[in-house]
Amino acid sequence: MPNPKLPLPIIVVVIIAVVITSLPPSLASQPSNAPSSSKWAPRFLGKFSTTTPKPRPPHRQQQQPKIRYETRYFAQRLDHFSFTDTPKFQQRYLINTEHWVGAQRLGPIFFYCGNEGGIEWFAENTGFVWELAPRFGAMVLFPEHRYYGESMPYGSEEEAYKNASTLSFLTAGQTLADFAVLITELKRNLSAEGCPVVLFGGSYGGMLAAWMRLKYPHIAIGALASSAPILQFEDIVPTETFYNIVSNDFRRESSSCFNTIKASWDALVTEGQKDNGLVQLTKTFRLCRELKKIDDLSDWLDSAYSYLAMVNYPYPAEFVMPLPGHPIKEVCRKIDDCPDGTSTLERVFEGVSIFYNYTGQAECFELEDTSDVGTDGWNWQACTEMVMPMSSSRDASMFPTYDFNLSSFEDECLKNYNVKPRPTWITTEYGGHDIKATLKAFGSNIIFSNGLLDPWSGGSVLQNVSETIVALVAEEGAHHLDLRFSTKDDPKWLIEQRETEIKLIEGWIEKFYQERKADFGM
Amino acid sequence: MPNPKLPLPIIVVVIIAVVITSLPPSLASQPSNAPSSSKWAPRFLGKFSTTTPKPRPPHRQQQQPKIRYETRYFAQRLDHFSFTDTPKFQQRYLINTEHWVGAQRLGPIFFYCGNEGGIEWFAENTGFVWELAPRFGAMVLFPEHRYYGESMPYGSEEEAYKNASTLSFLTAGQTLADFAVLITELKRNLSAEGCPVVLFGGSYGGMLAAWMRLKYPHIAIGALASSAPILQFEDIVPTETFYNIVSNDFRRESSSCFNTIKASWDALVTEGQKDNGLVQLTKTFRLCRELKKIDDLSDWLDSAYSYLAMVNYPYPAEFVMPLPGHPIKEVCRKIDDCPDGTSTLERVFEGVSIFYNYTGQAECFELEDTSDVGTDGWNWQACTEMVMPMSSSRDASMFPTYDFNLSSFEDECLKNYNVKPRPTWITTEYGGHDIKATLKAFGSNIIFSNGLLDPWSGGSVLQNVSETIVALVAEEGAHHLDLRFSTKDDPKWLIEQRETEIKLIEGWIEKFYQERKADFGM
Repeated sequence: MPNPKLPLPIIVVVIIAVVITSLPPSLASQPSNAPSSSKWAPRFLGKFSTTTPKPRPPHRQQQQPKIRYETRYFAQRLDHFSFTDTPKFQQRYLINTEHWVGAQRLGPIFFYCGNEGGIEWFAENTGFVWELAPRFGAMVLFPEHRYYGESMPYGSEEEAYKNASTLSFLTAGQTLADFAVLITELKRNLSAEGCPVVLFGGSYGGMLAAWMRLKYPHIAIGALASSAPILQFEDIVPTETFYNIVSNDFRRESSSCFNTIKASWDALVTEGQKDNGLVQLTKTFRLCRELKKIDDLSDWLDSAYSYLAMVNYPYPAEFVMPLPGHPIKEVCRKIDDCPDGTSTLERVFEGVSIFYNYTGQAECFELEDTSDVGTDGWNWQACTEMVMPMSSSRDASMFPTYDFNLSSFEDECLKNYNVKPRPTWITTEYGGHDIKATLKAFGSNIIFSNGLLDPWSGGSVLQNVSETIVALVAEEGAHHLDLRFSTKDDPKWLIEQRETEIKLIEGWIEKFYQERKADFGM
Repeated sequence: MPNPKLPLPIIVVVIIAVVITSLPPSLASQPSNAPSSSKWAPRFLGKFSTTTPKPRPPHRQQQQPKIRYETRYFAQRLDHFSFTDTPKFQQRYLINTEHWVGAQRLGPIFFYCGNEGGIEWFAENTGFVWELAPRFGAMVLFPEHRYYGESMPYGSEEEAYKNASTLSFLTAGQTLADFAVLITELKRNLSAEGCPVVLFGGSYGGMLAAWMRLKYPHIAIGALASSAPILQFEDIVPTETFYNIVSNDFRRESSSCFNTIKASWDALVTEGQKDNGLVQLTKTFRLCRELKKIDDLSDWLDSAYSYLAMVNYPYPAEFVMPLPGHPIKEVCRKIDDCPDGTSTLERVFEGVSIFYNYTGQAECFELEDTSDVGTDGWNWQACTEMVMPMSSSRDASMFPTYDFNLSSFEDECLKNYNVKPRPTWITTEYGGHDIKATLKAFGSNIIFSNGLLDPWSGGSVLQNVSETIVALVAEEGAHHLDLRFSTKDDPKWLIEQRETEIKLIEGWIEKFYQERKADFGM
């Protein structure tokens, strides 16, 4: 419920947040009310790193532990893989050495692989690394991913995002090379060449951590890759996996809730095709501006369900939005508990309000402005390397049938970025097919942690590969919950999962010290 | 001895060959007769791939086995690691499928990592792969390295070598990505995704094979890296290693030979500083043009000794030059057997004539034209990534003291190519320090084969790292002798070494099949 007593500035802030945080809807120029022929794949949570800080409901103020760090900058080559004369850029990184036992005692270096957003937000939301540092006597490093936050090539976001040519170095491979160069140089400067580096990462950052371990085994001794869907490419996992998991998250809470959402898509189209239907929908969903086409609204709903599945945490959190614990349960309770006679669309609106307006402060909702898409780093990445084909099936899920179509996708990317996707590059460069065989024969010291409520878990590694490549699977977990600060509300399984992770990391470091001793006859 | 009966055209050919095949001497603009402050590091043998075919002495015509292949072309991205809009180029590759048992039977694919030269020359000089193919039912692929042979970006050698900007994509990383993309696409086209790939490579190509196995473990199941000095970077091995090995190769044959060569450098300077000294040296060394500075001559001698050490094979070979078996023994016999009273410089000339003029057909010798340096692919690579610091010590070797100086080296590179070397990039990208620890923890299925007579062996892996990362060290071996066609003159140790390699490769392939069977429950 909107709170009329809140002073105006705060309401403005909330509205801005709502404006920025919805998914980019279909970009195809469709005739109004027709289903779109293509759409963007679901996003990770990194996009929320750029949202304005959200006010917290006073009765729920969480005690987020304080973190301390210095902010530094490192001059990086824009292109590590050619000798083209490109300008260097300043990569931002956060560093904390207060618990580090130092180079002489071979103190570990905990290195978080920054992902698609400003690094401070990830640092604040990756409490696990901060909590571990004192226990291990470790240095903490949070480098920012190029083209995000302050780490902008060409001096400014505006210049960096100008066109396909300036954006062309926004790739995972260049980012891994940034990390490799940064670690190598920092260690050299600190005479800390002998110190073991442990990688951490969640979501896309978890993919980077796993790939970094595979591509740069000489740089880091192990990686905790949390919720890292490194198999969400080409035909490695079925394209319907993601939306099926989202759907199951709702079905397990309530089949009537699932069915209401499932029925809502047709209701939307029926309503939208009526005379004055778009105006009526604008009212029902309390939109700030008149709805132009149904797709915009269905994408807004779709993204709420997808994000809810990712952040379906067991306690209240404000990671992406202020949300109650078990938010899907809450959404379904809202949907199911409406009085008899409430329409399907009204029920659905009540449900997603848990996601978009849990604090009750929003007076109306803005759907995302599609003209923004070109300035979004992840959309560029999705249009170049990170082609994750996603479909949905009306039969198997609560979503309408949608078949991923590479050629429509390519058209959108050409239109928006003047770039042609390379959908097979990631598997060529990092593998993916037969990943178990590859990892077993070659990799070691990687933890793939996943929660099965998380729709991204379907594209991750869910089975142990070897003694040192371990899958930790939490039935009740969502998107990289293990990386967050511990709280008094942590369920038992989460506490145990983190303890397992700590033991594994301890094992890597101990083994490293032992081998070093053996090598040096110490 | 020159043969006056040879028809003119053949003599012309020989002279051209001699012109092209000597080392690029010091490029520093030095006052005449002063020692240079910097020079290029020794080269691999790939440079000889561009020399005109050499006539063979009739009494020594070797029966080089014939190889058969089809020549094909593959459109490669010029830049795999950015989305810059660069033109594709046609990568040449040689293919032979006549012995391949096919995709259905998971026939192996033997993939030679093309190095710095036209691929046909490497194919002709890598008989081991051709001899193995029928035994394994394997397909044979010889892809050409970008910027060499016919695989020229921008349509022609002239355009590709125009400037630092057009050359900027001549890197090892881009080349490995070429290989990865080529293999992946070829396998897809042949529905041969399940077929195991084994990598082969010698010298720089051996480095590529080892790095390919490390960086693309999902692409190839193993690598035979012959004479691959992956540790010849930064301070990993002492910078004097190379020239010390060359010197020891001469000392073991004859200490008087070693001492004559050692004394010759001072004799050169003394002679050159005399009135009319350069004219006298021109005569003594039968140069076609008057010597301009002593450095040009000393570099010419230096490179003869270095190449002799690389190709110090136990039987006559025409790999780089027509040479007798045990050529260093022959050189030393010439030097030592001169009549009493022969001067040091005359002895040295007699010695290197074994290298430059074994057929006796050269009437005079051209020293390399230093103005060519900018059009040489390997020099570009040496000026960018492949910075291999090399020094020599008068005390420990038969060479004058020379200290590698990075800053002079950088000046030369800036002058010649307008590019600044990145001397730490190779170790950042591929490792090198603590290589045993890295390989043990991470790699598998690599054979590092080396001959201890080969000066490049000092920068290679000479000890077993694990059960599957094996060093084969031949005391009497030179530069990747094991990759050549077998001959009736092969010594016993060489036959045994090749048998060991075959058994190891068989083991990789068998294990691959077994694991595949287990995975598919076959």
